Amino acid sequence: MKIAIVGLGLIGGSLAKAIKKNTEHSCFALDIDRAAIAGAVAQEAIDGEITVDELHSCDVVMVCLHPAQTINFIIENKSKFKKGSIVIDSCGVKAAIVNAVEKPLADEGVHFLGCHPMAGREFSGFAYSVDNLFEKASFIMTPSDELPVRIVREVSQLAYEIGFARVVTSTVEEHDRIIAFTSQLAHVVSSAYVKSPSLLKQSGFSAGSFKDMTRVAKLNENMWTELFMMNRQPLIDEIDCIIAHLTEYRDAISAEDADGLRELLKTGRELKELSNNS
Amino acid sequence: MKIAIVGLGLIGGSLAKAIKKNTEHSCFALDIDRAAIAGAVAQEAIDGEITVDELHSCDVVMVCLHPAQTINFIIENKSKFKKGSIVIDSCGVKAAIVNAVEKPLADEGVHFLGCHPMAGREFSGFAYSVDNLFEKASFIMTPSDELPVRIVREVSQLAYEIGFARVVTSTVEEHDRIIAFTSQLAHVVSSAYVKSPSLLKQSGFSAGSFKDMTRVAKLNENMWTELFMMNRQPLIDEIDCIIAHLTEYRDAISAEDADGLRELLKTGRELKELSNNS
Repeated sequence: MKIAIVGLGLIGGSLAKAIKKNTEHSCFALDIDRAAIAGAVAQEAIDGEITVDELHSCDVVMVCLHPAQTINFIIENKSKFKKGSIVIDSCGVKAAIVNAVEKPLADEGVHFLGCHPMAGREFSGFAYSVDNLFEKASFIMTPSDELPVRIVREVSQLAYEIGFARVVTSTVEEHDRIIAFTSQLAHVVSSAYVKSPSLLKQSGFSAGSFKDMTRVAKLNENMWTELFMMNRQPLIDEIDCIIAHLTEYRDAISAEDADGLRELLKTGRELKELSNNS
Repeated sequence: MKIAIVGLGLIGGSLAKAIKKNTEHSCFALDIDRAAIAGAVAQEAIDGEITVDELHSCDVVMVCLHPAQTINFIIENKSKFKKGSIVIDSCGVKAAIVNAVEKPLADEGVHFLGCHPMAGREFSGFAYSVDNLFEKASFIMTPSDELPVRIVREVSQLAYEIGFARVVTSTVEEHDRIIAFTSQLAHVVSSAYVKSPSLLKQSGFSAGSFKDMTRVAKLNENMWTELFMMNRQPLIDEIDCIIAHLTEYRDAISAEDADGLRELLKTGRELKELSNNS
């Protein structure tokens, strides 16, 4: 199979390296950043560069750009893909992407499957890409109702070949709702956490809990602004939810209600243990 | 030097193991849990058991109990310590402990120094204690104005011998204010985080950020209720602070204010980077 990767950042670069390491497929890449292409060729992470006009020779095109760029690239080049080929994306939101590109591609005889490789690092760019980024990660697919099942099977098999720990299928709505909780809210909370006036006094007074809580505050604000804006209501619901719960703890402490506070903490511990076992 | 450890839980047990591994001091322990004492003797984590009536033979007594128990134990046995000896505690709050025990011990001719070994695990008890728990940890001391400097020097030297990465000195008020942010707030946020209705759907949809954010929700609710109740105002201030900041993100998303949201995220990233370098 001939695969093209559009965008050799952290995700695209790591996919290329994993494809070359773990599969027999050929892998070409397209990026406006000459250094990324040169680095990928030098590290043998790709078989070579590919141009937009050569995309018609590829069986699978993986678009690994930020959300708005992903939509723009696919729409602008919708006629350049091979008829019957598969185009996937790698964005952290799905409804906004799928709604924008699926129909235009279908009209061109191209199959689009929204995908979300659930992995990342607090660094961006090809320089940080690694061939084992997806070893413990889920690969989420959000196939639409009309997509032939064989396309889902092919992409699923490819994800396992690349080295993902598991492949999960979901509707776009379910994906966006759960991701608002598991990923987007974590980034909002981390970002809000570091804004206390106590922050710059913490040196020597912090341990693992502080480090874990604030790790993802080091984020790419351009990409995350796009992601949040494309998933507004589910994220607003999750922020409202955690604010309401934080207020319960606050009020129990303020009212010196030790029993109420203990119960809030106990419920949280039990939910955490339950989710670990699910 | 002859050291006694009162309470062979995670912290007391890890201190005992580190003392035996890294120092030449003798180390005895006292615990109502027979299994903890038996285990510590079998693992050679202590030189033997000690009774309350033998505490007068010890140069340093480390009380490693929960906060309320720490106060009760010290007050009940204030006459049992050797005159001129040092008693330290290991609680995560300092003003409530120091205010309760320092004067009664001073009246007995015993030096009390409030201490906080900044390490933990999401498990409790001697069974989880390890001899390297403190390798990368800070050891915080909150000496009172009247304490002779040589006591601070002795405990500081002992902490370095035990293997702490660094020793930090602070007032009790500063300690409690910063710990409300770096440790207590992290536990409240983690506990509140897991209360979303989305929690039990997250399997397959979560990566590192979710795992880090919710790790310490698995807490001992009895100990943390005591800690929070003994540090109410600083913790309330921090919870109010993060709620106010979360509301800013929420309102920017709700108002479709992408520029404002990007600025909020950018400020968070810059603060995180600044705090990493401090």
